[in-house]
Amino acid sequence: MKALLDALKFNEAGLVPAIAQQHDSGEVLMLAWMNREAIEETLQTSRVCYWSRSRARLWRKGETSGQVQRLVEMRIDCDGDALLLKVEQTGVACHTGRRSCFFRRVEAGEAVEAEPVLVPPGQLYD
Amino acid sequence: MKALLDALKFNEAGLVPAIAQQHDSGEVLMLAWMNREAIEETLQTSRVCYWSRSRARLWRKGETSGQVQRLVEMRIDCDGDALLLKVEQTGVACHTGRRSCFFRRVEAGEAVEAEPVLVPPGQLYD
Repeated sequence: MKALLDALKFNEAGLVPAIAQQHDSGEVLMLAWMNREAIEETLQTSRVCYWSRSRARLWRKGETSGQVQRLVEMRIDCDGDALLLKVEQTGVACHTGRRSCFFRRVEAGEAVEAEPVLVPPGQLYD
Repeated sequence: MKALLDALKFNEAGLVPAIAQQHDSGEVLMLAWMNREAIEETLQTSRVCYWSRSRARLWRKGETSGQVQRLVEMRIDCDGDALLLKVEQTGVACHTGRRSCFFRRVEAGEAVEAEPVLVPPGQLYD
């Protein structure tokens, strides 16, 4: 584990971007950030844990809402500066209540909403 | 287009991360970075153009190797600080000659190569 973490290229804030992808459908759910501790915890528990930049603390995805991500597989890119997490997403990934955070499509230079709200947002942000 | 670009949250270097995903198979190919100019060019030409951080210049993916990415659809995430590019990848995305840059799988805390080299690397880096 130490060799793995040492081989990653964290940015100046000690973070790497991590893409979460639903393992079976291939849907890209979100992009978030991980530090060493978040990666270690995720690999140890198979529950995805990010680093929240806005709250400056570990962010155990779904810790209050229950919209957790179970890690199926972790991948590392060629440069060691990005991660791909193949996950089993419970419920929705996005705090807006949509399955994926990438719900806005660019059409003719404008952003258009392209995914339905599946869960009332309310308490989803976690 | 200006409203779209103004709504994005670029980082302190003027960049946002962009995930490239093969549009039909769902395979995540790579993560790279875009600035305003790269996004504009990509939308105007439908040929994916990134910002190369290592070379500090626009990086028209495949400009010498021919391993280009045709943009099928661009998505923006809920926070406006990440992009998802659904693309048609010609050949391979990775400079190592593998289809995807995420060819290393984490197994028991170690990185293991999990994808074959399809094209001899040589001149692929572009």
